[in-house]
Amino acid sequence: MIYFDHAASSHPKPKAVGEAMIEAVNEYAANPGRGGHQLAERAGRVIQEARNELAAFFNAPNGKHVWFYQNATMALNQAISGFPFKDGDHIVTTAFEHNSVLRPLHQAAKLSGISVTYIQPDENGIISIDEMREAAEEHTKAIIVSHASNVTGAVVPLKEVKEIAEEVGAILIVDASQTAGTLSIDMERDGIDLLAFAGHKSLLGPQGTGVLISKHDYQLEPLVHGGTGSYSESSTQPSEWPDRYEAGTLNTPGIAGLLAALKDVKKRGIDEVYQHEQNLLALFLEGLRKLETAEVFGPAHLHQRLAVCSFRLKEVESHELAFILDEHYGMAVRAGLHCAPMTHHTLETVDTGLVRVSFGPYNTEEEVKQLVEALIEIEQAF
Amino acid sequence: MIYFDHAASSHPKPKAVGEAMIEAVNEYAANPGRGGHQLAERAGRVIQEARNELAAFFNAPNGKHVWFYQNATMALNQAISGFPFKDGDHIVTTAFEHNSVLRPLHQAAKLSGISVTYIQPDENGIISIDEMREAAEEHTKAIIVSHASNVTGAVVPLKEVKEIAEEVGAILIVDASQTAGTLSIDMERDGIDLLAFAGHKSLLGPQGTGVLISKHDYQLEPLVHGGTGSYSESSTQPSEWPDRYEAGTLNTPGIAGLLAALKDVKKRGIDEVYQHEQNLLALFLEGLRKLETAEVFGPAHLHQRLAVCSFRLKEVESHELAFILDEHYGMAVRAGLHCAPMTHHTLETVDTGLVRVSFGPYNTEEEVKQLVEALIEIEQAF
Repeated sequence: MIYFDHAASSHPKPKAVGEAMIEAVNEYAANPGRGGHQLAERAGRVIQEARNELAAFFNAPNGKHVWFYQNATMALNQAISGFPFKDGDHIVTTAFEHNSVLRPLHQAAKLSGISVTYIQPDENGIISIDEMREAAEEHTKAIIVSHASNVTGAVVPLKEVKEIAEEVGAILIVDASQTAGTLSIDMERDGIDLLAFAGHKSLLGPQGTGVLISKHDYQLEPLVHGGTGSYSESSTQPSEWPDRYEAGTLNTPGIAGLLAALKDVKKRGIDEVYQHEQNLLALFLEGLRKLETAEVFGPAHLHQRLAVCSFRLKEVESHELAFILDEHYGMAVRAGLHCAPMTHHTLETVDTGLVRVSFGPYNTEEEVKQLVEALIEIEQAF
Repeated sequence: MIYFDHAASSHPKPKAVGEAMIEAVNEYAANPGRGGHQLAERAGRVIQEARNELAAFFNAPNGKHVWFYQNATMALNQAISGFPFKDGDHIVTTAFEHNSVLRPLHQAAKLSGISVTYIQPDENGIISIDEMREAAEEHTKAIIVSHASNVTGAVVPLKEVKEIAEEVGAILIVDASQTAGTLSIDMERDGIDLLAFAGHKSLLGPQGTGVLISKHDYQLEPLVHGGTGSYSESSTQPSEWPDRYEAGTLNTPGIAGLLAALKDVKKRGIDEVYQHEQNLLALFLEGLRKLETAEVFGPAHLHQRLAVCSFRLKEVESHELAFILDEHYGMAVRAGLHCAPMTHHTLETVDTGLVRVSFGPYNTEEEVKQLVEALIEIEQAF
């Protein structure tokens, strides 16, 4: 199978990921931070190393600011539903957010008196920084943006968003699920207050890992309450980080896998990965021009986008196209709305959905050429 | 290292667990339920099989009633913080609950006008069913009990709790983190409405897996909002199960590992495991009698308890005892309050903590004998 669905979950993983996980499960399955014996301490050390490495990679103050969850969705819920918004607070976000931002925001708006402005991308999926600047006002408490759209691949220029946030005194919450591991992210340089991302996408870690990094203390309410292995006599979550925001046993094998993956990404070099994927994207976009009925979405300029490309063919329904690629060509792509409904409303593609192709570090030019040939064959057959 | 800390996390795991996880990571790391291609479908099938097997094992209606989380704490938070309690509702629970019940309950009481009665265990850790019957009244909406204490090992007789719940029309929420995999649990027979448990304890699965099984629809509010791979165009969680209660990408390798573990537990036979662990407990309790200063907590009768035993020595501080066992004898036990503060208040052991020894299916009689000999040596040295 040729895999072009990296925006959903990367595959394959570096060999070291599975090895680190099986080592965790077979050699130190003890509970980290729940007992001082050697096996528990070994588990705890691996988790601490993962916190420290992630803090360094994204330039956060230190490992205590790095909190682990089952997925990026839970990390975003902790950031958004846990944020102490008050009546009258205003939030600026974009219409190309994933449901992991849209749904908690909708819930927060329902429960409190906050208002939300959704910036519409243009027909290429580009967010207008001017519109965002206009939308931000004195009551704007937070700007929440996906670093890149999981549908069009359009990248939001964080430097400019940061300036807007600073102008109105809002905090900046970034969903980096599509970019962590393939685009450089520096919380200090980019002015990011709360950074959420998945471990199993471009970071090449296993599913079951999501991370929230908090630059300062925003007085977030813990979303989950329970055992922390610390201050057990208290009936509330302790104030210490990361304990306050992590209740219950952590996913040690998953975090060990994520640590191994991060080391691999660092060794490979994030710029190398980015360039490799951009080359594949350029080749694919060039190939799509050979199709007569392909309608391609997303920014025209490569530097404005990731190696994620959504398109449709005039005569072939998107799900059917994905099905044929899977069944007859052994190629994995993704059709549908990609959990990002407002993006598809903007693109006017809700009815048809789109076929999304997304590249990873292990994809090759040869594979991309095969994909283009397959698409040409399918188009001609209809 | 000889491992006696199974109540925190079981170790080692059956070989099949790590194998299933590495297979998931290396062969089908695609996103389950997020795309129709073969790899995503393979991931989805494994998760569906895990749901179905768990539903059958605990006699729940079907796999849709089985929801996956990062840990039992999150499952309990979904059950307790997600329950639509109203002003004036009353809850009966016990003072030997884990913080994963106590802390969400404390939070629920803070946010709404509910009241909570905590039944105190007697000096042996036994919960009086008569006291519980007296505490339950017409406003009692829920009875929440740990199936067994993680400190004393005392088991709550669910059959009798079920009768009380039925008498007053309350629902029964059970935290089976200590018993799932070692004591028979049948949601129908035991009258359990919401069953929460960890995958990484007696079920021998990996960390990163917690489960909530809901017998009927109790109108729980979803705790986490986000992408479900379904009904993407809706701004709220879909009403379909399990999607409504599971936002974001699931921990596929962890769930694959849990499925492999469950198959191993079934093959071994839950009664065999229970009997093996009870034999080790009997041997250990007998051995403790050889110590002059050991104060042992928990029910006197074996059938009232699990293979979890907490004790202290008069002259050796609990953390020091655990440290010596670890450092000089290579034995893993756990000292402290075990995330269950009220239990220790009842036992009047908050100041000293206790040393907890807990047995698993791979422990042997020889290991238990070595532990007893080590304790005798340590006691004599002080």
